Parts: sequence; structure tokens; C-alpha cells
Amino acid sequence: MDMENQKIPQATAKRLPLYYRFINNLHNQGKLRVSSKELSEAVKVDSATIRRDFSYFGALGKKGYGYNVEHLLTFFRKTLDQDETTNVALIGVGNLGTAFLNYNFTKNNNTKIDVAFDADKSRVGENVGGVAIKHVDDLEENMDNISVAILTVPASVAQGIADRLVAAGISGILNFTPARITVPAYVRVHHIDLAVELQALVYFLKHYPLDVEEEDN
Amino acid sequence: MDMENQKIPQATAKRLPLYYRFINNLHNQGKLRVSSKELSEAVKVDSATIRRDFSYFGALGKKGYGYNVEHLLTFFRKTLDQDETTNVALIGVGNLGTAFLNYNFTKNNNTKIDVAFDADKSRVGENVGGVAIKHVDDLEENMDNISVAILTVPASVAQGIADRLVAAGISGILNFTPARITVPAYVRVHHIDLAVELQALVYFLKHYPLDVEEEDN
Repeated sequence: MDMENQKIPQATAKRLPLYYRFINNLHNQGKLRVSSKELSEAVKVDSATIRRDFSYFGALGKKGYGYNVEHLLTFFRKTLDQDETTNVALIGVGNLGTAFLNYNFTKNNNTKIDVAFDADKSRVGENVGGVAIKHVDDLEENMDNISVAILTVPASVAQGIADRLVAAGISGILNFTPARITVPAYVRVHHIDLAVELQALVYFLKHYPLDVEEEDN
Repeated sequence: MDMENQKIPQATAKRLPLYYRFINNLHNQGKLRVSSKELSEAVKVDSATIRRDFSYFGALGKKGYGYNVEHLLTFFRKTLDQDETTNVALIGVGNLGTAFLNYNFTKNNNTKIDVAFDADKSRVGENVGGVAIKHVDDLEENMDNISVAILTVPASVAQGIADRLVAAGISGILNFTPARITVPAYVRVHHIDLAVELQALVYFLKHYPLDVEEEDN
């Protein structure tokens, strides 16, 4: 890892979109300032963590005043490159894929699902959540300007599709299949396995009994 | 947090179900040992991280031999309490809820979705993935032995349902809605927001360019 660009811990980076969304809502409501306590209650991250997260970007708040919403928004928008939209492809329009397509990503967001693919020929041309479904055989010719893919295919075909996505020049894959896929080192894969998420919650319940600890996720 | 019981970092704890699943597969294939390199390639976690994770449980591997699959399995099964099944309720049988119900959680798992609820009366009695759908009005009377809930309802009703789940004695909620819900401190909430996951991936792509770094998720 290049330490020069890696000052922000990954846990902090993961919370940025969350902060951004809430601050954008505040701004839309005409709010001018927000305290770290209010922020904490809204995003369910303890205020010490919020202050530590924000400190990675330099001091943004003032004691007794809190944070200036406009400044925070400008800051987060720049940090998250909210003005630059990333075009996303979704592969596999089953239940999970349909849930993704119906989710309003463009609201407060810098991502847009541009195209969706399915292996079922009878679904080609169908429109789900404003996105036209194409056949997966035509994947390669529809990947112009697409840099990220959401993988919601059956686990058995996940690696084959991932290989084709990599060949088509994708740089990031959000893998929602139970399959662990292998890609070249320059491609980033974030893996969200529903079973693992559920098992992790159960594990935490058994081994990290809660008292007044705040969730930090 | 109680430091006595908190020796395992949360990031390590989150990888345990992943390790368990792979080692269980190896065991089913009759494999007797596995190297940290093989483990690394299979679960997509770099081998230094694997060795560090395993070190929290005491030395489990031998140099030049690797790890004994049977020992690992016994160890993880005990750690993850695989022999004790946690009964789960799912609330909201839309696309995301249906994806969850069709996901084969019982395979290699210690969780079982026992009951599902939906607000649509016409769906009551329907069977999805082997689970009977009940009406959400009847939630309270069907929560015996249920300690965990998966929330896949519309965001607008998430808090109301969460309040009822807490009153019904739930101890953990896997929140898949975009809503940040408020619960008492003794209830654990893990929040997976599809939009935030997608934004986080895009943010990482822009700010954490990959070279030979392995994904660690």
C-alpha cells in the first residue's frame, strides 16, 4: 500500500458515504450547523469515533458550535467526488438484482446503474427500476464507460462472469454471490455474502454482549 | 466494552464464518491439512492476516505442515457454536427478502430462518424457500425461540418494526434497509446499506488504487 495516500483507515472510509448522506439531508432541510452529538444519534456512530474520523481530514468543527453544514457538505462532496458519476453494470436480475435495480441509487449518490444483464432471453428488453435488461451474451459490447459491476448471479457462474468483466476493463466488483472470485491484483472486489453477514451477527451476539456500547458499523 | 472478552478484533471476528465455511468444505472433501497459502487463495485474505487472525486463538498451525483440517474444524465449530442453531425471523418478503429466503442458509451454517412476515395479506400462507409467510400483524405471537431478525422492509416502516421486534425480545437485527434504526443499547444492529456498500467501493477505487494489495474483506 502507498502510505502517502493511505492515511484514512478503511473503517473511516467506509463511514464517509453515511456521513455524506446525512449531511446532505440536513442541508436540504436548510440546517446551518450540526453538533457531533446530533450526528452521532443520526448515523449511529459514537461521537468519539466521528471526531476521530473527521480529524483525518483536519479540524472541521468548532467547540460549542459544532460543524458548519455547508462546509461539511462541500468537503464531503469533494472527498467523495459526488459531482462525478460512476456508471455501474449489474449482472443477474434475480431477486437480489431486482432489489438493487429498484433501490434509488441516484438519490444523494454518485453511482448510477446504467445497464443490467441476465441469462434469461425472455427478460431482454424488460425495464426494471428504469434500467433496460440486456442478454449476458452481449455483455462485452455494452461496457463502454462502465467501471464497476454488481455481481448478483448464481454462485456457479460467478467466476466466469468475473473473468469476462475483467477482460472488459472493469476496475471494481461488488460481489453479492457466496462465491469467492479470483481477479487480477489491480481489480478491487468487495464481497458481501448474506450468509456470512448473518453468521457474523450471531457470532457477535454470543461473544460481544452489549451493554451501553454503540454499534459502529 | 468489556476488555476481558474483547481480545478478538471485530475485523477478525467477521472473517471467522468465512474461514469456517472453507475449512468445512475441505473436510467434506476428505482433506487432512491445508497451508496458509491455500487458505489465503481460497478465502481471498492475505496469509499474513490469516496467521494474525489465527494467532488470537493460540498457535494452530505448524511450519512446513500447515494446519490440521480436523483440528481447525473442531476449533471453529466450537468457536462459532455451529452445533447450536440460532432461529431467525425475516420481516419483509420483497425482492431482497425473497433472495434471503432462497439462499440456503442451513448449509454449513448455524442459522435458520424459521418464520417470515409480510404486510401483504395475499401472500400469507405462501411458502418461499421452505419458509411459511405470516402476516406482520401476527409478528409478536410468532417470536418464540427467535433471537435474530432480518429487516428487509421499506425504509419508512423500519423503525416501527424494529420497536416491535425489541418489545418481542429480539437481541440482534440485521438491518438491510437504508434507514438507521434506534434500539436500546443491549440490542445489536448490523446495518448493510446497499447504496453505502456501492459508494464505499467507488470511494476505495478512487482513493485506494490497487497494485498488488490483496483485498481484505
